[in-house]
Amino acid sequence: MQTQIESQGEKETGRLEAFSDGVFAIAITLLVLELKVPSMPLAGATSASLAKALFQLWPSYLALVTSFFTVLIMWMHHHAILRNVHRTDSRLHFSNGCLLLLITFVPYPTSVLAAYLQTPAAKMAAAFYAGSFVLVAISFSIFIYGAFRPHLLSKNASAKFILKPRTAATAWDPLSIFSPHLLPLSTRDCPWASAPCYGFIGRR
Amino acid sequence: MQTQIESQGEKETGRLEAFSDGVFAIAITLLVLELKVPSMPLAGATSASLAKALFQLWPSYLALVTSFFTVLIMWMHHHAILRNVHRTDSRLHFSNGCLLLLITFVPYPTSVLAAYLQTPAAKMAAAFYAGSFVLVAISFSIFIYGAFRPHLLSKNASAKFILKPRTAATAWDPLSIFSPHLLPLSTRDCPWASAPCYGFIGRR
Amino acid sequence: MQTQIESQGEKETGRLEAFSDGVFAIAITLLVLELKVPSMPLAGATSASLAKALFQLWPSYLALVTSFFTVLIMWMHHHAILRNVHRTDSRLHFSNGCLLLLITFVPYPTSVLAAYLQTPAAKMAAAFYAGSFVLVAISFSIFIYGAFRPHLLSKNASAKFILKPRTAATAWDPLSIFSPHLLPLSTRDCPWASAPCYGFIGRR
Amino acid sequence: MQTQIESQGEKETGRLEAFSDGVFAIAITLLVLELKVPSMPLAGATSASLAKALFQLWPSYLALVTSFFTVLIMWMHHHAILRNVHRTDSRLHFSNGCLLLLITFVPYPTSVLAAYLQTPAAKMAAAFYAGSFVLVAISFSIFIYGAFRPHLLSKNASAKFILKPRTAATAWDPLSIFSPHLLPLSTRDCPWASAPCYGFIGRR
Repeated sequence: MQTQIESQGEKETGRLEAFSDGVFAIAITLLVLELKVPSMPLAGATSASLAKALFQLWPSYLALVTSFFTVLIMWMHHHAILRNVHRTDSRLHFSNGCLLLLITFVPYPTSVLAAYLQTPAAKMAAAFYAGSFVLVAISFSIFIYGAFRPHLLSKNASAKFILKPRTAATAWDPLSIFSPHLLPLSTRDCPWASAPCYGFIGRR
Repeated sequence: MQTQIESQGEKETGRLEAFSDGVFAIAITLLVLELKVPSMPLAGATSASLAKALFQLWPSYLALVTSFFTVLIMWMHHHAILRNVHRTDSRLHFSNGCLLLLITFVPYPTSVLAAYLQTPAAKMAAAFYAGSFVLVAISFSIFIYGAFRPHLLSKNASAKFILKPRTAATAWDPLSIFSPHLLPLSTRDCPWASAPCYGFIGRR
Repeated sequence: MQTQIESQGEKETGRLEAFSDGVFAIAITLLVLELKVPSMPLAGATSASLAKALFQLWPSYLALVTSFFTVLIMWMHHHAILRNVHRTDSRLHFSNGCLLLLITFVPYPTSVLAAYLQTPAAKMAAAFYAGSFVLVAISFSIFIYGAFRPHLLSKNASAKFILKPRTAATAWDPLSIFSPHLLPLSTRDCPWASAPCYGFIGRR
Repeated sequence: MQTQIESQGEKETGRLEAFSDGVFAIAITLLVLELKVPSMPLAGATSASLAKALFQLWPSYLALVTSFFTVLIMWMHHHAILRNVHRTDSRLHFSNGCLLLLITFVPYPTSVLAAYLQTPAAKMAAAFYAGSFVLVAISFSIFIYGAFRPHLLSKNASAKFILKPRTAATAWDPLSIFSPHLLPLSTRDCPWASAPCYGFIGRR
């Protein structure tokens, strides 16, 4: 009986993961839709003018790459956390839902930033972009607290793993992907502190 | 022999779930495409005008959030129901197909509502939005009746679980996500009654 | 050793199914993007004019529903076929790839049909739509022949199942979803004959 | 204990595969969004003019098919490689992430190529398209080197399989799909050499 409940719990988390994977994967791929083919009078288009037009889209490429890796890192942590969670309840579902809502929202501030990065409104666009990621970070923290409750965790999750988020509050940023400490969840995993990083873009 | 049939049945439901998860996840993520980057003369754009333009999009944000959580709750119930179903037949496939058709349709009334919420046509836009969810609710009910037939259910499904939808006909609405009773299917699970909730928006 | 190879083969088909499910699910959901919010001067919009505009989109709704169920039925058959296939080879991968290419293409002729159904060019639009589904049907047949080779099939697949496609050549059409014989593969499963059905739309 | 670690490793790769499958499937399906319904005065549209307009879109169809099969082949190899990988680490996650970033980018150069293939800027558009696939090829090679490290591989992976990428450096191109040697990874699997193939398009 215990075994059956255990395996049902595993199946349930499995579908939560599959659904979340789908949302992450789609949100990350929709980012490309913000890139618009440069429009110019087709007859007068030359290789030089097209090259120039493609080059002038650099704010879009930059915003795409930044958002892509931010969402990807979020997914990696989501994945690392759920590996240790074997049961779900409505609180976990709801906090995961809020996180997914904000993840699906990411392509929008990315487009706004790309559109206005070279205008006088750049400051506002960057603030909107940074603000969106602050919301993502807050909802990710709520998700972490929702997931790390003993009765949801797998028996294999170590006490160390469970304690971590209680003490984690610093220095998470996209650059940490280059660090070898990324995937094993460390005290640098809490995304709270990523806001200044994005805010920095706004200070240009 | 019995074992092999059992496991084949499980596999079949598995792919139905995977496909449905995909459709739910994509429909929920496509909602963001309704958000358009505010267009203004780029040279004259200021932080203040961009902030104002982003703020004026509040009907879009509202429609996005409402549709997101409605679809998400639908997915949660879909998930809870299929956990107890181990076999499929053409009726279940067909009723699930109708439900998915209406789920994929959701981004469209959402866009219409967002576009017209601040015009004299708001009433019609809200009626169209509410009407779409009435159709979703009807097809969800048909799906529930299609799924809750004894020969499709897992042997582990309790008699209580099977009896529920026969007596369920009230008061399901998006707000129920805040309730601790959400995930264990209760008599409040039938989405029939959500229509008035959406209709309410139309009465503004 | 045999067991290990067997289970590797199962895993391989599993990922082919997952990828195909993804493509089917996305193609079916992208259909909604063809629906455009009616554009009218926002200040002058009234409930009556919006209702009229939404109603005039009926060719889009019709095209959406037709394409949705056609792709859905295709997916159901794809699913029923792959349940009996446990190994893959490059021919199966390639014929599946061609089928997926045409499935991803479906939203385009659907949009064309919806845009031109009420113009003098309706005949051409319908022919383009029908022609696309003829290509889908041809590639589905190639896929069936690619899948139904003894060394790829599960040992549990009955001889009757294997023989079927050799004799199947008639009368497959979207309406067959209403038939109780749909899911167990029958001699009516070959989509070759669906072309006339779509061609009929072109004769209006 | 060893068994538990082994099976956790397998699960981890499973979700990496699922996420990658999602991204590949979405990127490949978004290609269709580049196809625009021909716009012409609806009242004056005739079957002949629509047929002509649809025919003149051939660069789009060509670009769609080329990109589709290139991404599909990439996915097949990704799939064949990960079948032999049972553990993940941050380097594999990161190199997979870079590959996925470039895969999601593919619809954009495809649109640019389709838009400018018949203008004087064709050379630049083709160079942009070819250049994007050079980047994809580079990141695919990095991914291969990231995956083929002994401590990540399954015990069932043969020594021959492990050695291959060290000696592979030639002649991979989309046409190889017609070859019977495609799926078993061969020395022709390294995508480095595909660049000339795409570059060739630029020389028209």
